Amino acid sequence: MGFSFRIEHHDPRCRARRATFQTPHGAVDLPGFMPVGTQGTVKGLTIDQLAATGAQMVLGNTYHLALRPGERVVAELGGLHGFMGWQGPVLTDSGGFQLFSLAAMTRINETGALFRSHIDGSLLELSPERAVEIQEALGSDVAMVLDQVVSLPGEQAALRDAAERTVRWAERCRAAHRRADQAQFGIVQGGLDERLRVECAARLARLDFAGYAVGGLSVGETPEEMYRVLEFTAPAMPEQKPRYLMGVGRPQDILAAIERGIDLFDCVMPTRNGRNAVAFTDEGPLRLRNLKFQRDVRPLEQGCPCAACRHSRGYLRHLFMAREMLGPVLLSIHNLTYYQRLLAGAREAIAADRFLAYQAEKRAGWTATATAGNRLDI
Amino acid sequence: MGFSFRIEHHDPRCRARRATFQTPHGAVDLPGFMPVGTQGTVKGLTIDQLAATGAQMVLGNTYHLALRPGERVVAELGGLHGFMGWQGPVLTDSGGFQLFSLAAMTRINETGALFRSHIDGSLLELSPERAVEIQEALGSDVAMVLDQVVSLPGEQAALRDAAERTVRWAERCRAAHRRADQAQFGIVQGGLDERLRVECAARLARLDFAGYAVGGLSVGETPEEMYRVLEFTAPAMPEQKPRYLMGVGRPQDILAAIERGIDLFDCVMPTRNGRNAVAFTDEGPLRLRNLKFQRDVRPLEQGCPCAACRHSRGYLRHLFMAREMLGPVLLSIHNLTYYQRLLAGAREAIAADRFLAYQAEKRAGWTATATAGNRLDI
Repeated sequence: MGFSFRIEHHDPRCRARRATFQTPHGAVDLPGFMPVGTQGTVKGLTIDQLAATGAQMVLGNTYHLALRPGERVVAELGGLHGFMGWQGPVLTDSGGFQLFSLAAMTRINETGALFRSHIDGSLLELSPERAVEIQEALGSDVAMVLDQVVSLPGEQAALRDAAERTVRWAERCRAAHRRADQAQFGIVQGGLDERLRVECAARLARLDFAGYAVGGLSVGETPEEMYRVLEFTAPAMPEQKPRYLMGVGRPQDILAAIERGIDLFDCVMPTRNGRNAVAFTDEGPLRLRNLKFQRDVRPLEQGCPCAACRHSRGYLRHLFMAREMLGPVLLSIHNLTYYQRLLAGAREAIAADRFLAYQAEKRAGWTATATAGNRLDI
Repeated sequence: MGFSFRIEHHDPRCRARRATFQTPHGAVDLPGFMPVGTQGTVKGLTIDQLAATGAQMVLGNTYHLALRPGERVVAELGGLHGFMGWQGPVLTDSGGFQLFSLAAMTRINETGALFRSHIDGSLLELSPERAVEIQEALGSDVAMVLDQVVSLPGEQAALRDAAERTVRWAERCRAAHRRADQAQFGIVQGGLDERLRVECAARLARLDFAGYAVGGLSVGETPEEMYRVLEFTAPAMPEQKPRYLMGVGRPQDILAAIERGIDLFDCVMPTRNGRNAVAFTDEGPLRLRNLKFQRDVRPLEQGCPCAACRHSRGYLRHLFMAREMLGPVLLSIHNLTYYQRLLAGAREAIAADRFLAYQAEKRAGWTATATAGNRLDI
């Protein structure tokens, strides 16, 4: 029960590919989307509810788990799988993104980074070797190397320095890695710069990781800039390995990335928006707090099999107005189910050589509402 | 599909009885416990999770639902059953308890009560006729009459006045009631006074309600005082009708009340304590935030089939320490399951003529921990 990656089918009209990634905890159908379980839980969902959304693989956050409850506690409680009670594949990030997003609390040099805990102010050191060690204790199926992210737009020199440090750190992570039942993925950096991205991808490829991620996107650039980066970065990544776009994104971003050859995604958007009363649908997002839903007997989306769609929009609105926990829970379930259905549809479309048509249909549905004056920038 | 009440078995050693209450939305095995769904949701649980606890009938709060979203909105969204998505029996209270618990915001006279909404300060009038009207709009299977509760210990004159007004209001509720698919229960008041309680029960019995409740308990008296009231009140209530003890209580209170002839219960304790990291078990309550559970790999209770008990105590503690929604959700599920299993055990014990032994076993388990220094006053 090791790792393997098999491409089942290429859509001849674009770079989209239908693939399967096998891990010791089961297979992941690609393109696929991972819900984010930052602190060892996808917020508000039991494991059964999570499985019912169609999710196959979930993401855990090394930074958060190392601070609380600590990776030793997680290991004693059965590793991240046993801890969460999730028997499917798990991927952990390296904390690299938190070096960036929590930068005010961070000192970075070649050795690694020094964090100040957002919980109690205590100090946490995160070096490439330590990122490997924590993730091995967590016992995820896929561990990410420690990388350095730069906000966009960035100085060319800063982007080059970060990309080169990312490669050096990747080498150190590769050397430190021990667990045979854990795969390690490299992370391509380089901002919006084609030469930096392609060079970074080529140097990482030589380290022969089990998979490769595109990092440093969704950090300030426009969607069009992101798509352009994927246009030249994805083909520079090894063809016969899974390609993972970290932290992205909106439904339209995911389809655009699949078209350009990306296989795997994670994003907090379905759960975070769900907690905030925003539901994804094929006709664009619904803001459930709106008074117009007060007496609306329809489900969020006709034909959606999720637990939320057994209720009326009016009831779901009531839950949010009354500040009932069940509102965030049900909308998180709906949105995660929406993402999984979107990805399942993408896989079917690729297999039928009609991914571009699928993408166009979805975009038409989302845009129809936008032009009807309901546009939401999310 | 109307209403019926059938006593299956009397335990010859006490007043405990095994019965079945049939409603248009299904049967309720008695003695039984109703989870509280104040605002049209048992806090944090989906309908599937609620059903999985073993609950057969749930309670909704007239006062809260009338204020938000309003009973007309609930009616348009399918009545309380359709609104919540719960297809089993539903009981609604009358708002009488809120006259008491929110008394600072209330003016009461013979006509009824005037509330100030705790949400927006608007005025709500609640008369016996209005309490009937709201509950008919909500469409519950069982509606409660409007009663007047007095805090204990209370002046004898105030208790007598409240008990007599409760009977007059019960008559008005009886006269106002229209829906044939809704049963109406009377409520016995009278504080701790035997003559008042017995007289109130007798006068209500003449009105021929479908069931009778004991109200005005768990409002400041000791458990022993409450048990004594049940000792003389239950036998004064019609034998061939369900007997419901409102708002009670701790597991030991429920068993003590069953012994004295009570059939039906509701209480916020399992959900409220669950949200507050307290788990009920046969060895007494566990406070999950305690550091001693940090690395505890055991489930809350061995053999419990609930979703929480698929996790370790260490994981559940982590959820509370990390302020994750899933902690309150899982502990609410566990506690509601605990209550349902306690009641299922009581029903089996009654059928086997061994209810008193069952109660003694349970109390021994709870008390063993108490004497071991773990006592919790909850």
